[in-house]
Amino acid sequence: MSAFRAKPLLSILAGEQLAPPPIWLMRQAGRYLPEYRELRARAGSFLALCYDPILAAEVTLQPVRRFQLDAAILFADILLVPQALGADVRFEEGEGPRLAPVTSVHGLRRLNAHGMLDRLAPVFETVRRVRAELPAKVALIGFAGAPWTVATYMIAGRATPDQKDAKLRAYQDPGFVAALIADLTAATISYLCAQADAGAEVLQLFDTWAGGLAEPLLEPLVFAPTREIVAALKRRHPKVPIIGFPRGIGLHLPAYARTTRVDAVGLATGDDVRLAAALIPRDVVLQGCLDPLALIVGGKTLQNAVERLLADMGDRPFVFNLGHGILPETPPEHVAELVRMIRNGDPK
Amino acid sequence: MSAFRAKPLLSILAGEQLAPPPIWLMRQAGRYLPEYRELRARAGSFLALCYDPILAAEVTLQPVRRFQLDAAILFADILLVPQALGADVRFEEGEGPRLAPVTSVHGLRRLNAHGMLDRLAPVFETVRRVRAELPAKVALIGFAGAPWTVATYMIAGRATPDQKDAKLRAYQDPGFVAALIADLTAATISYLCAQADAGAEVLQLFDTWAGGLAEPLLEPLVFAPTREIVAALKRRHPKVPIIGFPRGIGLHLPAYARTTRVDAVGLATGDDVRLAAALIPRDVVLQGCLDPLALIVGGKTLQNAVERLLADMGDRPFVFNLGHGILPETPPEHVAELVRMIRNGDPK
Repeated sequence: MSAFRAKPLLSILAGEQLAPPPIWLMRQAGRYLPEYRELRARAGSFLALCYDPILAAEVTLQPVRRFQLDAAILFADILLVPQALGADVRFEEGEGPRLAPVTSVHGLRRLNAHGMLDRLAPVFETVRRVRAELPAKVALIGFAGAPWTVATYMIAGRATPDQKDAKLRAYQDPGFVAALIADLTAATISYLCAQADAGAEVLQLFDTWAGGLAEPLLEPLVFAPTREIVAALKRRHPKVPIIGFPRGIGLHLPAYARTTRVDAVGLATGDDVRLAAALIPRDVVLQGCLDPLALIVGGKTLQNAVERLLADMGDRPFVFNLGHGILPETPPEHVAELVRMIRNGDPK
Repeated sequence: MSAFRAKPLLSILAGEQLAPPPIWLMRQAGRYLPEYRELRARAGSFLALCYDPILAAEVTLQPVRRFQLDAAILFADILLVPQALGADVRFEEGEGPRLAPVTSVHGLRRLNAHGMLDRLAPVFETVRRVRAELPAKVALIGFAGAPWTVATYMIAGRATPDQKDAKLRAYQDPGFVAALIADLTAATISYLCAQADAGAEVLQLFDTWAGGLAEPLLEPLVFAPTREIVAALKRRHPKVPIIGFPRGIGLHLPAYARTTRVDAVGLATGDDVRLAAALIPRDVVLQGCLDPLALIVGGKTLQNAVERLLADMGDRPFVFNLGHGILPETPPEHVAELVRMIRNGDPK
């Protein structure tokens, strides 16, 4: 237990109260860092970077070295899973991902879970490399996209602002969408288990597009698959805590926490932290949720936002994070400033 | 009081319990109706249609005639207010609105509230015409965009998926954004009062982009201006109920209802209706929030969604509506089907 407790993120996720809270930031390895942009250019393409264990491990470690954060999060992409299942995935520069849309059970048949873990082997090698090099107090977070969020890209063939294509399919062809969600649920379980086997100490499930789903769709597309993933992971890795991040589900957060049995829930920018803290059972750790725009602005704006967030979290155990990923235009010195504020325990 | 009670929407907003609930639909006058598309083509441009009282009144009345809804909602646009203040507003076909961005106090000085109501006179004429022609049981709803939502368009010069431009300005130049919000608050009060003077019986405030605002921005940009608008309207038109629709604020809904003192709160697609009903004081009427995508699909999907919503609203007084506007691809016969389901009191 002593090695365990040496890592603040693991301590808090095990239910200990810590002040100051541990801190890491979604998309902390990324374009806002000049050292990232350099390696990204060297790799040639975004996917090449994801699949090169030496470069991906280096990218994962960059923010930890620069800012002394409490966690590293594996550098990878949520669309590696559909790609490993055989979907055609490309990243167009400045355009976001492009996939060959999968819109029917017939299209699903061309996907193949067999060999998926072999195709993802470089990711697990990245996990092993990072874990070996990580400072003693820093935890390693593995992650995957939640099935619904990954499905929205697979159905539409691209990022969509409102996920309309995928939601319409879910109403019009519930059998197909249920089969797709089931395939992605099984794939996500294998993928996250393999990350834990390779050394990931915490797992986060990103359900970026869970917000705005009508109630009849929320249970089958978000709650049920998340519950299944959590239960399967708990059977095979009972000591690896799971953070769920169903971005934007707002009032559904208490139900999500209760029904999925995640160890921690990530709040999003715009969530009511005080009400969430009042409604979500205390044994579920909260994570979040500084506005990434306040981090761009820095200075007094950042200080006020941090003070407000610390006050709203009150005496609950929580993990300091953003309410969404770091934006590319964020000055790295603002991240350093933020870590300093939190570590001093007194943002003033 | 008897004429008052003859209109189900006014009865429910006055606190009476009604079954079946009154029904109207956001964007019920619009592109999904062939008779709308015909008048839209005749007017030449979207703005010409908004400013032609004869055509705009006709467009407002079209869905009421076709579907026997409980309310007509004025056909207009939330950007008529900035235009009447002197901002350059255009609607490009298929592209949405384009404005000359206002990003500084200097830019604000070129706006001018003097004469605003004269420029908006055709809108009030539309209200008078609709009111005169409306069936006895149908209420007339006037509306405006809430200051923050209108400000997001004025600052960015266009619709933005994440309102990043406006949020960054709010952090970086709070003095300018406060001045813009103050100007829009005053303009909105005048505009809505004039609509009530002309015959609007209910007023709805659309805060389409309130969701995702970080907590330090929510009070100054959404809560405070809404509270001020409601208080001013209540002084001049104490009997005109106000519906607030802060789309996507999720967990902040109870605080919004409490602090703004609106008579009714519109829920959005994706809100947890049961939890909202439990947390929002019972004297605040709920409105919403069928998924517009379920209305596109129709049939059993629509029936299930309606049954679920009726069950979740329980015995609370509520106004049946969508969780967002009707989408252009909605078959008009599905709207007829929906009204039939609600009117029969039994969607089966």
